[in-house]
Amino acid sequence: MKQIAFAAALLALPFTVLAQEAKPEKPVTPNDIVAAAKAEEWVAIAPEDLLIMDLSPDAKGRPRRVIIQLMPPPFSQGWVGNIRKLAAAHWWDGTAIVRVQDNYVVQWGDPNGEDTKKAKKLPGDLVVVPESDYVTNENYAGSEKLLNTHIYHRERVRKSILLKSGKRGDDYAEDTYFYRGWPLGWENTHQNGDAWPLHCYGMVGVGRDVSPNTGTGAELYTVIGHAPRQLDRNIALVGRVISGIENLTVLPRGTEALGFYKTAEERVPITSVRLASELPAAEQPQYEYLSTESESFARYVDKRANRKDDFYIRPAGGVDICNVPVPIRQKAAAK
Amino acid sequence: MKQIAFAAALLALPFTVLAQEAKPEKPVTPNDIVAAAKAEEWVAIAPEDLLIMDLSPDAKGRPRRVIIQLMPPPFSQGWVGNIRKLAAAHWWDGTAIVRVQDNYVVQWGDPNGEDTKKAKKLPGDLVVVPESDYVTNENYAGSEKLLNTHIYHRERVRKSILLKSGKRGDDYAEDTYFYRGWPLGWENTHQNGDAWPLHCYGMVGVGRDVSPNTGTGAELYTVIGHAPRQLDRNIALVGRVISGIENLTVLPRGTEALGFYKTAEERVPITSVRLASELPAAEQPQYEYLSTESESFARYVDKRANRKDDFYIRPAGGVDICNVPVPIRQKAAAK
Repeated sequence: MKQIAFAAALLALPFTVLAQEAKPEKPVTPNDIVAAAKAEEWVAIAPEDLLIMDLSPDAKGRPRRVIIQLMPPPFSQGWVGNIRKLAAAHWWDGTAIVRVQDNYVVQWGDPNGEDTKKAKKLPGDLVVVPESDYVTNENYAGSEKLLNTHIYHRERVRKSILLKSGKRGDDYAEDTYFYRGWPLGWENTHQNGDAWPLHCYGMVGVGRDVSPNTGTGAELYTVIGHAPRQLDRNIALVGRVISGIENLTVLPRGTEALGFYKTAEERVPITSVRLASELPAAEQPQYEYLSTESESFARYVDKRANRKDDFYIRPAGGVDICNVPVPIRQKAAAK
Repeated sequence: MKQIAFAAALLALPFTVLAQEAKPEKPVTPNDIVAAAKAEEWVAIAPEDLLIMDLSPDAKGRPRRVIIQLMPPPFSQGWVGNIRKLAAAHWWDGTAIVRVQDNYVVQWGDPNGEDTKKAKKLPGDLVVVPESDYVTNENYAGSEKLLNTHIYHRERVRKSILLKSGKRGDDYAEDTYFYRGWPLGWENTHQNGDAWPLHCYGMVGVGRDVSPNTGTGAELYTVIGHAPRQLDRNIALVGRVISGIENLTVLPRGTEALGFYKTAEERVPITSVRLASELPAAEQPQYEYLSTESESFARYVDKRANRKDDFYIRPAGGVDICNVPVPIRQKAAAK
């Protein structure tokens, strides 16, 4: 079998292995567009918005680092604020990965959280966030841009940039779009509309007890399978894994109900969680994302919906928003 | 944090850990419906349709078995026939897992397949399947039931059993439905319509070279991330992993481009692949699936689209077909 040719077609890297071959009219791939984006179309991620989680080294002694980007306003800021406080208190140091359920989530926090006698004390200044904050209304004071972006997106859809057929759409929301680097759902309400973040692969959310509990942010999970969009608007999303998710996805699946680990030995220790801004400047990881308001991003989405690379014989003519990962890359070191 | 309560809400097992609590009106979950389905609503999977793949034992000496269900007519039968021949020839014995790409695929076959001098010789009686077989037209001689099932499904949608809003739908197909246990896409054509299987989590497909090559079936992959539906109608799907997918999903991600393993040492040896029908009767695994034409399945889909369990405060009112795994279970041993 021609593995390489098959492989090139399933591409998720900036350059295909076919790039060396001279072809008169080589079709443009989504990654070609990202690679050609202008420097000014990339947006730096502030160190205050990066959470660095280090697990204990693996069986071969290799370090395991996971980097999470926190969500910007106007979304989930009550929980995000709690997470900043928990990181500043070094609260997660000594906690663990407690659950890995195949095609669903990896979850971490205090393994003794259920036992009121043994549970780790939380910082006293965490806020209780209401369920209404699972969504953001477009009348929200800071959301003028949110609304404008949405209208802009709808205009694009009308022009059939993304969708060939008016029948197509999302199963969980009236509409979906991107805003400041994040995938959102949208629903019409009597006050313009509500927007909310989506449970795509790698998104990070806040474990909680049953309603009206909304969780503090001390117990977190990330999606490691097909997007469980039924959780949208039912639980807070606070960020996404932007590096090192493979350190979580390869972990043994838990054998207890729901993928919880049965014994303390199975759990994977978390040695430290820090905001990048707490590290010395030279140690702060530098990342940037392709602006979802940029022309290159619009072309990237369009190309993901209409693949014409060598491998594709039939472009889909549409794309699930969770199949449009926002391009994120390490910044070149400052000179 | 109340991990257990959170956990129960994210349920993928027949009974919740909250089941012991006495509640006056405990909401019905999708899994409650599956657990209550009648015996006659379950359909046995023939041993001729089960492919048993054994990997070498893991680092702790534990066996690693993966069981794949092959697709029934009228889909992909050229490739499925080749796969039966390859299994009968014990062709995969001594091949390997060659690629693991996070949020995408695990792929296996002959590691030397690219090297014409070293490549393992294929059985001489494999057929070449045309690209037209990626889809099945409803005028196909054996597809009367296919068409009827689709019409039945559309009637249900019109009655808003699944979808509250006429705007909602699938990004990759005009319509989606289930037929004889499998998720399908549908598109209107001048001859009734075309139907095709979907790249949901765990589905198994056939690696291939660029068009017009369609692959033989000797190189296979399974989906281990968000459904890459852009591959639908571009590559053959031949089955799905029904047991042991965690033996594939936990494998280290390959570090070469596209997740290929760099060295022979990284590859995971495949010790044997057999059709269950080749094993002695007592060793044949016994599985059954919940008929997708049953009343219980219809209720199960409806409940997955409208979750009202304790955890959910806002049912989605819709569901992505790849978020409706067809219930499959081991049959109780015959008495």
